[in-house]
Amino acid sequence: MNYRKIFHYLGIILLVEALLMILPVIIGLLYRERIVWCFLVTMALLGAVGFLFYRRKPSKNSLYSKEGYVIVALAWVLMSLFGALPFFICGNIPNYLDAFFETVSGFTTTGATILTEIETMPKCLLFWRSFTHFIGGMGILVFVIAIMPKTEGSSIHIMRAEVPGPTMGKLVSKLRMSARILYGIYCGMTALLFLLLFAGGMPAFDSITTAFATAGTGGFSVLNNSIEGYREMAGVNSNYIEVVLSFGMIFFGVNFNLYYLILMKHGKHAVKDEEMHWYAGIIAVAVILITAVLTVTKHPFGESLRLSLFQVASIISTTGFSSTDFDLWPSFTKIILVILMFIGSCAGSTGGGLKISRVAIMIKQSFRSVKKASNPRRVEMVKLNGRAVDEEIVHSTLSYFSMAMLLTALSIIIVSIDGFDLTSSTTSVIACFNNVGPGLSLVGPTGNYFDFSPLSKIVLCFDMLAGRLELLPMLLLFRSFGSNK
Amino acid sequence: MNYRKIFHYLGIILLVEALLMILPVIIGLLYRERIVWCFLVTMALLGAVGFLFYRRKPSKNSLYSKEGYVIVALAWVLMSLFGALPFFICGNIPNYLDAFFETVSGFTTTGATILTEIETMPKCLLFWRSFTHFIGGMGILVFVIAIMPKTEGSSIHIMRAEVPGPTMGKLVSKLRMSARILYGIYCGMTALLFLLLFAGGMPAFDSITTAFATAGTGGFSVLNNSIEGYREMAGVNSNYIEVVLSFGMIFFGVNFNLYYLILMKHGKHAVKDEEMHWYAGIIAVAVILITAVLTVTKHPFGESLRLSLFQVASIISTTGFSSTDFDLWPSFTKIILVILMFIGSCAGSTGGGLKISRVAIMIKQSFRSVKKASNPRRVEMVKLNGRAVDEEIVHSTLSYFSMAMLLTALSIIIVSIDGFDLTSSTTSVIACFNNVGPGLSLVGPTGNYFDFSPLSKIVLCFDMLAGRLELLPMLLLFRSFGSNK
Repeated sequence: MNYRKIFHYLGIILLVEALLMILPVIIGLLYRERIVWCFLVTMALLGAVGFLFYRRKPSKNSLYSKEGYVIVALAWVLMSLFGALPFFICGNIPNYLDAFFETVSGFTTTGATILTEIETMPKCLLFWRSFTHFIGGMGILVFVIAIMPKTEGSSIHIMRAEVPGPTMGKLVSKLRMSARILYGIYCGMTALLFLLLFAGGMPAFDSITTAFATAGTGGFSVLNNSIEGYREMAGVNSNYIEVVLSFGMIFFGVNFNLYYLILMKHGKHAVKDEEMHWYAGIIAVAVILITAVLTVTKHPFGESLRLSLFQVASIISTTGFSSTDFDLWPSFTKIILVILMFIGSCAGSTGGGLKISRVAIMIKQSFRSVKKASNPRRVEMVKLNGRAVDEEIVHSTLSYFSMAMLLTALSIIIVSIDGFDLTSSTTSVIACFNNVGPGLSLVGPTGNYFDFSPLSKIVLCFDMLAGRLELLPMLLLFRSFGSNK
Repeated sequence: MNYRKIFHYLGIILLVEALLMILPVIIGLLYRERIVWCFLVTMALLGAVGFLFYRRKPSKNSLYSKEGYVIVALAWVLMSLFGALPFFICGNIPNYLDAFFETVSGFTTTGATILTEIETMPKCLLFWRSFTHFIGGMGILVFVIAIMPKTEGSSIHIMRAEVPGPTMGKLVSKLRMSARILYGIYCGMTALLFLLLFAGGMPAFDSITTAFATAGTGGFSVLNNSIEGYREMAGVNSNYIEVVLSFGMIFFGVNFNLYYLILMKHGKHAVKDEEMHWYAGIIAVAVILITAVLTVTKHPFGESLRLSLFQVASIISTTGFSSTDFDLWPSFTKIILVILMFIGSCAGSTGGGLKISRVAIMIKQSFRSVKKASNPRRVEMVKLNGRAVDEEIVHSTLSYFSMAMLLTALSIIIVSIDGFDLTSSTTSVIACFNNVGPGLSLVGPTGNYFDFSPLSKIVLCFDMLAGRLELLPMLLLFRSFGSNK
C-alpha cells in the first residue's frame, strides 16, 4: 500500500473539515455563544494534523482499489474522531465515546442520538450536529474530488467506495465534473427545502438544520420531539411542514443521476427509470396499508394518511424523523416499517439501507430461480430497465445481502449482552446499520441510545459506518488491522 | 407436464400412507381405544383415492425436473390433507384447518402445535402425531424409492427435490440402494434411541414416540410440558433422559452420508468432514456462551450446562423439544437461539434451517469478497472440505438465502396482521419456516399456535412446507397454480 498517498489524502480531508467548521463558528458568533472556542481549538488541531499528513506528498500518483477503500474508511473514522471534539471539549457531551457516537451518527446520516435533552444545547453545536448530516449525505470525498484539481485518474476508486449502490451510473465518466454537478443539485434542492420550511413558519435556524438533516437523509432534529415538536409551536403550520418534509425526504431518497438527467433535458429517461418505479410502488403500498390500519384502529382518515406518509417517507429514505410515536402503532404497521428500514432508498441517493435496486434484483433473481427449476434449459436473465443485468452484479448483490445479514446477526448478538428486550436489541442494530436512526421500544422515536454499554456503542458505530460505506471499506480496514499490518 | 405420471406417483404415496396407518391402528387396539375407526375410515379413503390415481399408468417413463418438484410438493400437501383426517373425524381437533396445521407440522418435522392439552389425547392419535415426524424426517418419497422396483432413471429428480442441502452427495449415484441404506441407518439409530430412553425409565409408549420425534428432528412430545414434564414423573431418570436426548438430537442433525461412510469403514473421511466441524464448533460456542450467562444469572454451573446443551441441541437440530422455558432466559441467550434457528442442521440430515453448509459457504463467500476488494486480480475460490466449491453452488446458496429471507419477511407481514407482539409474529414464522417448532413469547415453549387466525395458519403451513422442501417445490407449485394451468 502507498501509505504516503493515503496520508496525503487524509490530510486534505482533515483540512477540509477544519474549513467546514467555519460555519458553526459563524452561527456561534451570531448567537453570541462563548463555547465557540471549542470549534476554534478543534480547527487548530485539525489544521495541524491535516497539514502534517498533507505534507507527505506521494511519489507516484496511481492509486489501487484497496487504497481507495482504506482512504475512505479511515477518512470517515478520522472525520468522526475530530468532529466529536467540540461536543466533548465544551462538556455538553461529557463522555467522549458518546460524542463520537453522535458524530458518526451525524456523518453516516443515521440520526441515532445519545442525547436525552436536545433543546438546551448551544446553537453552534446543534448546527454542527445537523451540518454533519449534510456533509455526510453526499460524501465528503466526493466533495473533495469536486473541489480538487487534477485528481481524475486515481479518484475513481475513492468515488466507487463512497457512492452507495450496486453499480455506478454512467454519470461518473467525467469524475470531477460529475461531482460538481451532483453537489450543485444537492445544494440547490437543500436551499429550496429551506425556503419551503421557512415559508411554513419554521424559525430560520430550525429551517436550516432541518433542511440539512433532510438533505442528508439523516434525521437529527433540534427539538426533543423531532418534527412532532412543531405541532405545539406558535406560528408554525405543522401540517404543511409535515407534508413538505414527507416529499422532501422522498425526493432525497431518489437516485441523483435522475435529477442530472432532468437537468440535461433527458427527463424521459428519468421517468422511465425502473428503480424509481419500485421506490414509488413500495412507498404507495406501504402508505396505503398503514393508512388503512391506522384509520381502523386509531385516527380519522386524513390524519392517518398524513402520519402514514410521513413515517413511511422518513423510514424508507432512512432519514428517521418522526411526527408521532410509531412505537405505539399496531404490530402490522411496525413490521412494515422495520422491513422498510432494510430496504432503504435508491442507489446514488443520500439514503441508506440495502437500496431499492438491490432488493429489486433479489426479487427478480428469486423469480428466475423458480423459472429455472421449472425449465432448466431456458436461459433467463435478470432484467432492470429493460436490459439484462450483468451476472457479476447479480452475484455481488446476493453476496452483499448475505454479508449484511451476517454482520447484522453478529452485531445483534453483541448488543444483546446489554440485556435489553429483544425488540430494542434487534431494531437498534437494524436502525444503525441501515442508517435510519430510531428503531422500536427503547430506541423508538421517544427513546435514545444513551443507555447502551460502551461495547454496544462501539459496535453500533461500526455498523453505521459499515452501512453508510456499504461494508467493504470498513471490513477491509478491520482486516488490514487484523492481519497484514 | 406428464399429468398421468404425476397422478401415478401420487397414487403410490397415498397407498403407502394408508399402509403406514396400520401402526396407529395397532396402538389403538392395544390400548382398546374406540376411536381407532377414524383411522380405518381414513385408510379406506386413502385406498380408494390412491387406487384411482395409481391406475392412471403413464405411457412414457421419463420424468422432468419440473415434474419431480411438482410431485414432491403435491405429495406432501396431499399426505397432510389426508393425515389430518383422523384428528378431525374423531373430533379431537374440531377445526379441520387446525388438524391440517398439526399434520403439516408433523410431516415437515416442525413440531409447532395448536394443541393446548396434549396428555388427554387418545394414544393412537398421539402415536400418529409423533409417527408423522418419523415419516417426514427422511422423506416419504425417499421411502417409496427405497421400496419400489425399477424407478432408477426417473427418481433422481424426486430425490433431489426432497433431500435437503445445497448439493447431493455422491451417495445417490445408485438411488434405490442408497435410499435403502439411508432408511436402514435411520431405523437403526431410532431403535437404539428407543432402548436408551426406555432404559432411563421412560414409559414404552413415550420412548417410542419421543424416539420418532427425535429421529425426524420434529419435536412433538406426548407431555404438555415437553421433556421438562419427565422431571416430575416417578421412576424416570430425567437428567439422564435429557442428556441422552441432547446427543440424540445432535446426531440426527448430522449428514447421514457420514454414517454411511462409517458403515462402509470410511470413518476417516467422515471425521474430516468440514460441515460436521462447523456444526460441532457452532454447538460448542453456543453452549459455552449460554452456560456462562445462565451460571451468572440463574442456575448453578452443572444445571446451566445441562439446560444449555439440551436447548442448543434442540434448536440447532431444529427439533424443538424444551427442557425448560427458555422464553424466560436473558435476551442474549434468546438471540443466540433465534440465530441457531436460522442456521439449522447439516445438509442431508433430518433437520431443517438454512443448513450448516450453506451458512459456511455464505461466511466464506463474505471473506472472499473482502479479499477480492483488496486485490481484485487474485482468483479466490470458496473451499469446502479442501476442494473448491463450484461457483454455481455458491451462487445458488446466496440465491437460496435471499429467497428464504424474502419469504420470511413477507410471511411476517401477513402473520403480524393478527396483532400479536413483534416477538411472537417474527419468531412464529422463523420457527415454522426453519422447521423448529417453538419460538418465543406467545409461541414459546409453554405456548402454542392455537390463537393465530386461519390466514396466519395457512401462511405458516406454507412456510413449514417451503422450509422442509427447500423452497423450490412449493414456489413452483404456487406458480403453476397461478399462471400456466
